[in-house]
Amino acid sequence: MSTQFSFTLNATDGAARTGVINTPRGAVRTPAFMPVGTAGTVKAMMPESVRATGADILLGNTYHLMLRPTAERIHALGGLHRFMNWERPILTDSGGFQVMSLASLRKLTEEGVKFSSHIDGSKHMVTPERSMEIQRLLGSDIVMAFDECPALPAETKVVEKSMQLSMRWAQRSRDAFGDRPGHALFGIMQGGVTPELREESAKALVDIGFEGYAVGGLAVGEGQEAMFGVLDYATGYLPADKPRYLMGVGKPDDIVGAVKRGIDMMDCVLPSRSGRTGQGWTHRGSVNLRNARHKDDPRPLEEGCGCPACSNYSRAYLHHVVRSDEIIGSMLLTWHNLYYYQTLMQEMRDAIAVGNFAGFEADFHARRAQGDIPPQ
Amino acid sequence: MSTQFSFTLNATDGAARTGVINTPRGAVRTPAFMPVGTAGTVKAMMPESVRATGADILLGNTYHLMLRPTAERIHALGGLHRFMNWERPILTDSGGFQVMSLASLRKLTEEGVKFSSHIDGSKHMVTPERSMEIQRLLGSDIVMAFDECPALPAETKVVEKSMQLSMRWAQRSRDAFGDRPGHALFGIMQGGVTPELREESAKALVDIGFEGYAVGGLAVGEGQEAMFGVLDYATGYLPADKPRYLMGVGKPDDIVGAVKRGIDMMDCVLPSRSGRTGQGWTHRGSVNLRNARHKDDPRPLEEGCGCPACSNYSRAYLHHVVRSDEIIGSMLLTWHNLYYYQTLMQEMRDAIAVGNFAGFEADFHARRAQGDIPPQ
Repeated sequence: MSTQFSFTLNATDGAARTGVINTPRGAVRTPAFMPVGTAGTVKAMMPESVRATGADILLGNTYHLMLRPTAERIHALGGLHRFMNWERPILTDSGGFQVMSLASLRKLTEEGVKFSSHIDGSKHMVTPERSMEIQRLLGSDIVMAFDECPALPAETKVVEKSMQLSMRWAQRSRDAFGDRPGHALFGIMQGGVTPELREESAKALVDIGFEGYAVGGLAVGEGQEAMFGVLDYATGYLPADKPRYLMGVGKPDDIVGAVKRGIDMMDCVLPSRSGRTGQGWTHRGSVNLRNARHKDDPRPLEEGCGCPACSNYSRAYLHHVVRSDEIIGSMLLTWHNLYYYQTLMQEMRDAIAVGNFAGFEADFHARRAQGDIPPQ
Repeated sequence: MSTQFSFTLNATDGAARTGVINTPRGAVRTPAFMPVGTAGTVKAMMPESVRATGADILLGNTYHLMLRPTAERIHALGGLHRFMNWERPILTDSGGFQVMSLASLRKLTEEGVKFSSHIDGSKHMVTPERSMEIQRLLGSDIVMAFDECPALPAETKVVEKSMQLSMRWAQRSRDAFGDRPGHALFGIMQGGVTPELREESAKALVDIGFEGYAVGGLAVGEGQEAMFGVLDYATGYLPADKPRYLMGVGKPDDIVGAVKRGIDMMDCVLPSRSGRTGQGWTHRGSVNLRNARHKDDPRPLEEGCGCPACSNYSRAYLHHVVRSDEIIGSMLLTWHNLYYYQTLMQEMRDAIAVGNFAGFEADFHARRAQGDIPPQ
């Protein structure tokens, strides 16, 4: 096991890449999908089950954890890994995005953001320095720079000012992060859908120097076409020898399109959240298990899938427990969805390794075009 | 593995007994605690996890399953064992108790009970014959006779009339059950807190002849003292060579007291239900994990416990996930509580086998008298 953080690129196919991020807590195979463990748990999953789906790394949310149970408490209890019983790598976001989307009474200044907790109304301030401190207390392996992210669409002038603030905060994040062998700090590119701003942001980040680079400010309402449009050029502004992380993405077709455009890491609540509302994701698209068409169906959600939901239960059972609001419905569908997502990542890693990403992609879209299996 | 249903008594200590119920689906070590899988799932648990706690047999609820997804549907899907992925023995109740406690617009006649579903208002009728049919469709290994159970306290005359109706229904249940090798039908003794009625009921049942006998009509509001008072004499009315089942019991001290009085099987929602509200059961009593005293406590819920909640998590973590309404809080505490209950059953089986039930019981009460571990 590595004692340092490093990234090895093993193969490329067009812009798509496959490799390994090495950390003292284990390897992360890329392209990687990171399940979201918002408040110290991937909802409805035991951590050993998350690992069994094939996940190498989790994402934790700084905003949620700083409010409850607090970073200081988690630190006193031995850090986030021990707290939540996940000894492999953890990436934490900076808190910035969720402060802007969840907290109330936000006040943004050059210094940072003041806000009130959505849980109990308590007052807090997060600055780049405080975000680095929180992520250090949590024991995060991959720390994200503190940034500001405007919702899209927004005026170019607004996006530019915001991006430039984020770049000043990126420098302060780097300075505050300090020297932490085995841990990584990632910078976050901003600039909305304007190529010049994306380029300016990337240059500023590369000048500072980070162990990895995120494409921020996407998946915030701009739509898939606009997102892919940015990725078509923006990943090219980033160093080829560092991991590239697309934050908050996405649906399976978003993920495939992002990997095609040179992204190495992603995270999204979608597979876990939709699993709690009765939605299953398969190679043929998404399936609403609440639908009455499943109530007598003895077939598995996805034929050939190796997850417990598909190995041991019928669609009729999944329909029954979803309709009855039984917790096992959330447990089984979250497990399946995370397993499907990790299967998809493995398929892409394999395809890139043998130079057949185009073949994978054609097959991916052809299977989805079929739609769900017909009723019996 | 047995092809027939049988009961072997291995040892007794006073009135307490230990033995094995053999069924084609596996052995049930007695005294046995049966977790409740109301609607085709032990809430918040995967069935393999229920087995890992040490459970040999589950209870399923006829009333819930007949309404949703229906007994006919479960039968068409291969039976309840396959439906819910639990291949070991299942006992089903007759539906009578829950018709009277959950359904609306109930009408009781000699024939059976008419009622409206609490889920969708649909009209149903359950008779002894229909209850046998439903339990056969479910594929239950241990079938309960259809009975009527008045809430206590009730006038002796009311209890007597109800008991006599239940005895006529017991005969109809026996007749309708038919010849089903490998499956068992249990009769249910009624008679409230009146020894003469209990004796009359037991004689009626023994005259009919069953593979096992339940003590019904307890744990319905009479209190532990009255319940133990009935058990002090009522188990003696039942044949020594058949299993004795106390329905719907109970708290750990209820269970210990029942085993002491010759009970072999019990079921209760308490360990699973209380696990979903943040309550943990230990050898030192019950612990409310919502309480702020746990928020910084790095110690496990119960030192030395082998369940995942105690092996891998602190009280501080359990407190955090319970307060945050995270599903893993229900998952971990249900697992712990079922594990504790099964541990307790194993301790009693071991103590009876070596003739030391009194020593076990003294230790059980001494540990509980200590109360929870003091704050650090």
